[in-house]
Amino acid sequence: MITLTTDFGLKDPYVAEMKAVILSICPNAVIVDITHEVEKFNIRSGAFMLSSAVPYFPENAIHVGVIDPGVGTRRRSVVIQTRRGFFIGPDNGLLVLAAEKQGIICIRELANPRFMLPKISYTFHARDVFAPAAAHLTNGIKVEEFGPEIRKVVQPEFTKVIKRKDGWIGEILHVDDFGNIVTNINEEAVTQSCVKNFVSIELPCCKLKLKLCRTYAETKPQEPLILIGSQGFLEISLNQGNAAETFKAKPGDKIKLLL
Amino acid sequence: MITLTTDFGLKDPYVAEMKAVILSICPNAVIVDITHEVEKFNIRSGAFMLSSAVPYFPENAIHVGVIDPGVGTRRRSVVIQTRRGFFIGPDNGLLVLAAEKQGIICIRELANPRFMLPKISYTFHARDVFAPAAAHLTNGIKVEEFGPEIRKVVQPEFTKVIKRKDGWIGEILHVDDFGNIVTNINEEAVTQSCVKNFVSIELPCCKLKLKLCRTYAETKPQEPLILIGSQGFLEISLNQGNAAETFKAKPGDKIKLLL
Amino acid sequence: MITLTTDFGLKDPYVAEMKAVILSICPNAVIVDITHEVEKFNIRSGAFMLSSAVPYFPENAIHVGVIDPGVGTRRRSVVIQTRRGFFIGPDNGLLVLAAEKQGIICIRELANPRFMLPKISYTFHARDVFAPAAAHLTNGIKVEEFGPEIRKVVQPEFTKVIKRKDGWIGEILHVDDFGNIVTNINEEAVTQSCVKNFVSIELPCCKLKLKLCRTYAETKPQEPLILIGSQGFLEISLNQGNAAETFKAKPGDKIKLLL
Repeated sequence: MITLTTDFGLKDPYVAEMKAVILSICPNAVIVDITHEVEKFNIRSGAFMLSSAVPYFPENAIHVGVIDPGVGTRRRSVVIQTRRGFFIGPDNGLLVLAAEKQGIICIRELANPRFMLPKISYTFHARDVFAPAAAHLTNGIKVEEFGPEIRKVVQPEFTKVIKRKDGWIGEILHVDDFGNIVTNINEEAVTQSCVKNFVSIELPCCKLKLKLCRTYAETKPQEPLILIGSQGFLEISLNQGNAAETFKAKPGDKIKLLL
Repeated sequence: MITLTTDFGLKDPYVAEMKAVILSICPNAVIVDITHEVEKFNIRSGAFMLSSAVPYFPENAIHVGVIDPGVGTRRRSVVIQTRRGFFIGPDNGLLVLAAEKQGIICIRELANPRFMLPKISYTFHARDVFAPAAAHLTNGIKVEEFGPEIRKVVQPEFTKVIKRKDGWIGEILHVDDFGNIVTNINEEAVTQSCVKNFVSIELPCCKLKLKLCRTYAETKPQEPLILIGSQGFLEISLNQGNAAETFKAKPGDKIKLLL
Repeated sequence: MITLTTDFGLKDPYVAEMKAVILSICPNAVIVDITHEVEKFNIRSGAFMLSSAVPYFPENAIHVGVIDPGVGTRRRSVVIQTRRGFFIGPDNGLLVLAAEKQGIICIRELANPRFMLPKISYTFHARDVFAPAAAHLTNGIKVEEFGPEIRKVVQPEFTKVIKRKDGWIGEILHVDDFGNIVTNINEEAVTQSCVKNFVSIELPCCKLKLKLCRTYAETKPQEPLILIGSQGFLEISLNQGNAAETFKAKPGDKIKLLL
């Protein structure tokens, strides 16, 4: 099984070309799209998507991730072998978060032209380098054959949550298609700051005192609430509404959880 | 074969997580997306999509539908067995229209934790309850094993067409991506009201006298027309244009077909 | 293997109905979406997408293309057999560009009702005529059985690049989801007009002198550049930015490459 995560969108034939290359080399590959709507060039957002979805896939799945503003430059192409599967893509931090969760076994550079398309473009390594690598790996080629071992990969830039006297300072990781605001603040901090089932937070636009709920439907329609999302982080939502629009919130915004 | 119909959009990894769960339990499942772009929380629109597409799928297909504003509340999760296949989702009216067309044999609550993920979130039953149920059903688990029988399910709220002395009052069910305006008025009413191949209708914005056509190309480009759409209902269209934009029409608007 | 290229979008169940029909007739078909986001009714743009993606698919793939403003009229439905595979769709120019690249062997009209759905709508031949044809072809039905041979098909309307004394006049074929501006000017013209690694072009909005690069990352972020895209044509891009928005460029605009 091969998964694909890119910022290519679905308007152009780019994703189809990747699939065509994979199925030409490995006709029995099962390909699952994670998403192709990652914000363009946003490596951090892609890393978050990948690390959210990957745990639900079966063992030995091969995850191809391509958010690649440096395509064609000296940035390396890599395959990462973990205890549960494989990751293929550019060495720019995109793959590391999800790979580390699974336990990294080894990292190899994709350097062997035998496992690339005969003609490599400078601008579309997803099709010419990453897709063939995933297909050959599915066909049973060993990671050792792709290229030399790499000791150190580029780390993703994630902001850590900071604990202050009066609370935690975190940030908005993601706004989903429903407008739910996903932050990097975990359940433990929420539990500690919760008073009589209410939590106080500061967003750039406003201060809010919100009910800590388990489901979206615990407030009235269009009313805000806080819950621990399906990924284990503090989420701000509106019951049947769009919290990000209402609170003018976007990825990267600071959020303070008050003690 | 398993189909998926949701309001999740394609930006987030939610649909991929459903597929990952299905393929982990049943690696040979063939999964077909019906649509993930149903208007958020719009159960009626989802029911219409589902009932439009389902007749074209092979026998024994399992249709998972998730428009679920009440996720995590006391609303039940159900599997409906019909003469042609199965429906899985929340008991909120979404599945009934399509299921009744096939003839319902029995309805069971999804209550058996053996056929759910080990850890159930409060906000993502699509991944934790519905996807595993579909996969286990494909693997041959009998509907009886999922939970107790249910006699009555929540009915969808559909407006019936009303016959008056001077015509029929119906409504707009759906505006498709081309801007075609699909109504709930059927072919018989159109035939009865048609005079010399022309039909008179009233929309909130205007009265129109439109040619009854069989194809979009029977008027000049950008000119309006009426036809019986591929789903058997009165449709208002513009040849190579967007009728909904031109006539400011949206789902839920009343439409009157004049005798 | 069957590929699908349409202007249907992903909001409606139309694409799913095509897949349902294919899988009902040929349960083992592998279906790959090329794109369903071709600009509505834009045959030329669909032809460009198809001819870009098709070379990467394996031999004997069946490519179904449906940009079909004349659906239900006298325009014919065709299957084109080439040296590498098959093309199915309306006879309106959509398929010819990609098919000719592979070498056309013969063209047949889809006229045999045995290989259509029992009830043919006037507005949805993609589901009722093209999808079943692709599925039956995959099942081994010979092209001869679909209908009579056709000698001449409708040619696509593509503008040729014109050579003048002071340069080449071409046009914008496509703006991709990144905002890259893809033109119909080929590598040879670019090489001839390039002076010390810079190229001068005229767009409707402005004159530009741009660096000829091999990768997007050779200029500073947000700075424009020219490269030969992965499809062999002159592309105008912004490093990590949107060139089409910046230069107000859209498909069909003239572009002049100055000598």
